[in-house]
Amino acid sequence: MLSSIPPRGFSQSEFEQRTQKAQRMMIEENIDAILLTTEPNVRYFSGFMTQFWQSPTRPWFLIVPREGNLTAVIPEIGRHGMESTWINDIRTWASPCSEDDGITLLAQAISEVKMRFGRIGMTLGKESHLRMPVNNFKQLSEKISPTEIVDIALHLHRLKKIKSEAEILKIEHICQITSEAFENLPSRVNIGETQRQICLKLRQDILKQGGDSSPYLIAGSGFGGYDNIIMGPTDSVLEKGHVLIIDTGSTFDGYFCDFDRNFAFGDLMEETRRAYEMVYLATDVGIEAARPGKTTSDVWKAMWSVLEEAGGMVNSVGRMGHGLGMELTEWPSVMPGDETLLEPGMVLTIEPGISFAPGKEMVHEEDILITEVGARLLTRRAPAEIPIILN
Amino acid sequence: MLSSIPPRGFSQSEFEQRTQKAQRMMIEENIDAILLTTEPNVRYFSGFMTQFWQSPTRPWFLIVPREGNLTAVIPEIGRHGMESTWINDIRTWASPCSEDDGITLLAQAISEVKMRFGRIGMTLGKESHLRMPVNNFKQLSEKISPTEIVDIALHLHRLKKIKSEAEILKIEHICQITSEAFENLPSRVNIGETQRQICLKLRQDILKQGGDSSPYLIAGSGFGGYDNIIMGPTDSVLEKGHVLIIDTGSTFDGYFCDFDRNFAFGDLMEETRRAYEMVYLATDVGIEAARPGKTTSDVWKAMWSVLEEAGGMVNSVGRMGHGLGMELTEWPSVMPGDETLLEPGMVLTIEPGISFAPGKEMVHEEDILITEVGARLLTRRAPAEIPIILN
Repeated sequence: MLSSIPPRGFSQSEFEQRTQKAQRMMIEENIDAILLTTEPNVRYFSGFMTQFWQSPTRPWFLIVPREGNLTAVIPEIGRHGMESTWINDIRTWASPCSEDDGITLLAQAISEVKMRFGRIGMTLGKESHLRMPVNNFKQLSEKISPTEIVDIALHLHRLKKIKSEAEILKIEHICQITSEAFENLPSRVNIGETQRQICLKLRQDILKQGGDSSPYLIAGSGFGGYDNIIMGPTDSVLEKGHVLIIDTGSTFDGYFCDFDRNFAFGDLMEETRRAYEMVYLATDVGIEAARPGKTTSDVWKAMWSVLEEAGGMVNSVGRMGHGLGMELTEWPSVMPGDETLLEPGMVLTIEPGISFAPGKEMVHEEDILITEVGARLLTRRAPAEIPIILN
Repeated sequence: MLSSIPPRGFSQSEFEQRTQKAQRMMIEENIDAILLTTEPNVRYFSGFMTQFWQSPTRPWFLIVPREGNLTAVIPEIGRHGMESTWINDIRTWASPCSEDDGITLLAQAISEVKMRFGRIGMTLGKESHLRMPVNNFKQLSEKISPTEIVDIALHLHRLKKIKSEAEILKIEHICQITSEAFENLPSRVNIGETQRQICLKLRQDILKQGGDSSPYLIAGSGFGGYDNIIMGPTDSVLEKGHVLIIDTGSTFDGYFCDFDRNFAFGDLMEETRRAYEMVYLATDVGIEAARPGKTTSDVWKAMWSVLEEAGGMVNSVGRMGHGLGMELTEWPSVMPGDETLLEPGMVLTIEPGISFAPGKEMVHEEDILITEVGARLLTRRAPAEIPIILN
């Protein structure tokens, strides 16, 4: 049974709280305003949600000042949509405009910010993109000089890592929808079908269960194991002895789940069965280790100790989990060297994996919420034994 | 009836031809290599296709030198996938790595390029994104200095605007699939349903007909007209007298269609009927005008003369069509000032629109291929009269 459907959108107070958190950060960091340019960042502070970001042509800008109201500087095509958000100061230009695609208008809006430190924050660093032409970024820098542009990528990651109750409900809902669809899958799949056919069934079921879309839905398969977890689906046929992994980032109201499930076809090699068990156990240990006061690095170490003891080899993924929310993968990473302190409200994937033979990987993944008393599963736990499809 | 399904992927000679075109451009522009960082650009030259770009965490790099073989510098997680392409020189690092996310490895690979001009091309200008942190871009610039990084955004747009036969088949296939689903829709929809319910039916039918995904599928509706074409779908109910537009960018094998259809519910206001007719006629005129030797600006003027004569007002879209292919919208724009010469092999959307009353727009869209003798429709032409849903 699925949980009840959470309301779409957010209350205005949610955006006010996000803005206040950003403004506190700006005070601490001596920043006068932040300028946002990417879909998740503009949406986080404005509530502006449109699939139109699929079009790479036009840039979009949102200014969050240290004091006062937010300003959207956007293509005219977005005015009606932005007017339906809590943003009142909306400035538009006829975009696309190759001579000046919003830069003069944006510089004007920045010049109206009450300056104290002469510093504007943008996402320039860790795990960031600008989503505007570099040349326009340079042009903007010159136009607003001597105001300096400083990096706030990590500050924004930190701010967004704590999810509100409303955000958590959305993530949990898509986790539950996708869990249901994964549980339904073995009874709908046959030996001899292709990766693509099987993934289509899952995609359709996620839509039927109430998911909005599946921007990420991949498959890997092979005899006894698969050699990667980011490609496909292809027309590869699932034959007796094959193992299939499907990993999906599906969405509800702009929030992602991100987890995978493994399936065996016909029979199961002993080494694959053992690999599944080992990674299943590591997942349990990772979930148990993920509690306030511990770090992402601690969680990695807890999982790796299980895998290493059982003789697992490092795979190609580079980490064993990450943040999750408005994007398929968010900062931080569950890996050595990432010493992010776990706090209640963080949503993480727990994603241990190994290479158990040449060209054979085994990866599990669950999505969890950090609470005061430890991790709470947002997904329904994978079966303790790999489902074997016998049809 | 749908056309037969085109083969997935491309022959190696397709990638060789693309590379040769880029190398000719490099010779003309005194450039030693181009460095690509975005999904469509990396895919265009390598054939590397994965939904994993949904994860913003890791950067990906492809070097196309003026002479010799391509080099992929990518996260280790992508090695197996890249090995399945025609790229042989694949260098990987354990990503994510916050201290040095591939930059040293990338600079090393660039240092091996046979330098003659000391110039590396990257997409810095017109309608471009970098999809790597700005700070890492600066770090790279310093590391490879005195080699200069120069803008090749427009050169790449020009190179990619001419589609190969294999590319055209993919675009036409998704245009036909989506046309079929749009034609099926009126018989499956009822007055009283929501935008979201109707869009879900279309999304499911596109999958059923063989589409891979619908990254863009929006709806606008209202009494007698809609006020925008980039938001939704929402839970707005379609009532008697409402007009609905659905616009979708759906994909087959990594290639997009992008077109819309309009539907009336219950009955039709006279002004809406006239607006539909006017924009339908403008579409015809636009398709007729789109032939080799004409420019994008000519096509715009031909459409606008129809709309202006009939008393239409400019809407918020900012243009009346654009390039189409691996992305929902590609350069160029069908608008005044864009003087791109039309050439056989270009795929364009023809997208006239007007505002015909306050808060009421009417937009049509078809996808065409420029051939030696004029435009060929890739979509099935919209009905000459707006379909009225009476159930």
